[in-house]
Amino acid sequence: MHQTTVRVAEGALDANQTIADANRADFDAAGVTVINLMSAPGAGKTTLLERALEDTGDVRVGVLEGDVRGSLDADRLAHLHIPVTQINTDPAFGGECHLDANMVRSALDQVPLDEIDLLVIENVGNLVCPAEFTVGEDRRWMISSVTEGDDKPLKYPLMFRTCELVVINKIDLLPHVDFSMERFLENLDRVNPGAETLQASARGGEGLEVWRERLLGASS
Amino acid sequence: MHQTTVRVAEGALDANQTIADANRADFDAAGVTVINLMSAPGAGKTTLLERALEDTGDVRVGVLEGDVRGSLDADRLAHLHIPVTQINTDPAFGGECHLDANMVRSALDQVPLDEIDLLVIENVGNLVCPAEFTVGEDRRWMISSVTEGDDKPLKYPLMFRTCELVVINKIDLLPHVDFSMERFLENLDRVNPGAETLQASARGGEGLEVWRERLLGASS
Repeated sequence: MHQTTVRVAEGALDANQTIADANRADFDAAGVTVINLMSAPGAGKTTLLERALEDTGDVRVGVLEGDVRGSLDADRLAHLHIPVTQINTDPAFGGECHLDANMVRSALDQVPLDEIDLLVIENVGNLVCPAEFTVGEDRRWMISSVTEGDDKPLKYPLMFRTCELVVINKIDLLPHVDFSMERFLENLDRVNPGAETLQASARGGEGLEVWRERLLGASS
Repeated sequence: MHQTTVRVAEGALDANQTIADANRADFDAAGVTVINLMSAPGAGKTTLLERALEDTGDVRVGVLEGDVRGSLDADRLAHLHIPVTQINTDPAFGGECHLDANMVRSALDQVPLDEIDLLVIENVGNLVCPAEFTVGEDRRWMISSVTEGDDKPLKYPLMFRTCELVVINKIDLLPHVDFSMERFLENLDRVNPGAETLQASARGGEGLEVWRERLLGASS
């Protein structure tokens, strides 16, 4: 059964790439830069977005929220008065553990591409499958919180390898957890040499200005 | 493509159940109680196991470690001198995001079932798919750390619904994070009324004796 699963998955990945290319063409035609933002559950994707998007300057930003169920994250962003579209992955049995290109495509008619410069796709919280399914994005970024441990780049290598920026979040908790920044950066360097990193604390405020500038600057 | 994926997955789930039943028969024949231990990445599965298994009394325990890649967690348990078997899920494209019954079955010839009373299967860190694939276990337990946020039962309902015990870990960090235990328990109650909970801190030591007794007592 395991081998069968692999063949099916590879077929699905081919189909996914075809649809991702179509998404990408639509994004390019509308002049929209797209970031696929990924992390484990609870790493702080929504909170970091909330902080960064409180002031978007003259950059017009939209968000596509991917969740197994519910609209908790979209609701949290509602006060920002930017276009937020929710995708739920749960029509499939227990819920898909990632967004794929077709799910994003099916939501595109609700995303006002002509009115935004930057679209942030907040993927389902998961360090495995979201890395395997491109959705037509320009950039793949991830958030890793220090509470998850410094071994994570070695345990989830594809995710860390395919992201060009790793935001290391919750650094305000460093005094209270067993996390060595040096070891984390060494482990990251083993799977993705030269990856850009950015240290932040959505709660404590450290690094948020740099994060906001990095996010909003991605559209230029 | 989405609908095709669903049909394939449902077929895979039927096959999975057949193999899970075979695993269960083998476990029963050997008189081994099996716990499927699940959580998000970095919630503390391995550390909680390490703490509990430092003294197993007269309960003979084995561990089956599921990881996308590597044997970091198995290595961490090596000093306990109990049988630890590692499964890597990464022969599949970017790595399977969960253990399935066949992966467990393929490892069973390396697990000394006749020499243990309790087998703990540490699943891949993920709050979605591991809940969908039974592996022949007697019990499904999960760990949720307070750093992940109190909304997680609503965001990953299948996982929280299918587990009979939810260990709330890292409670030593409660003063430093925005987590309401009351709200978490309310959210859990909405998806799994009556679920058993246990509060612990693998780092601070709170609740560890109760956790150890609960774990070792599961075999009786």
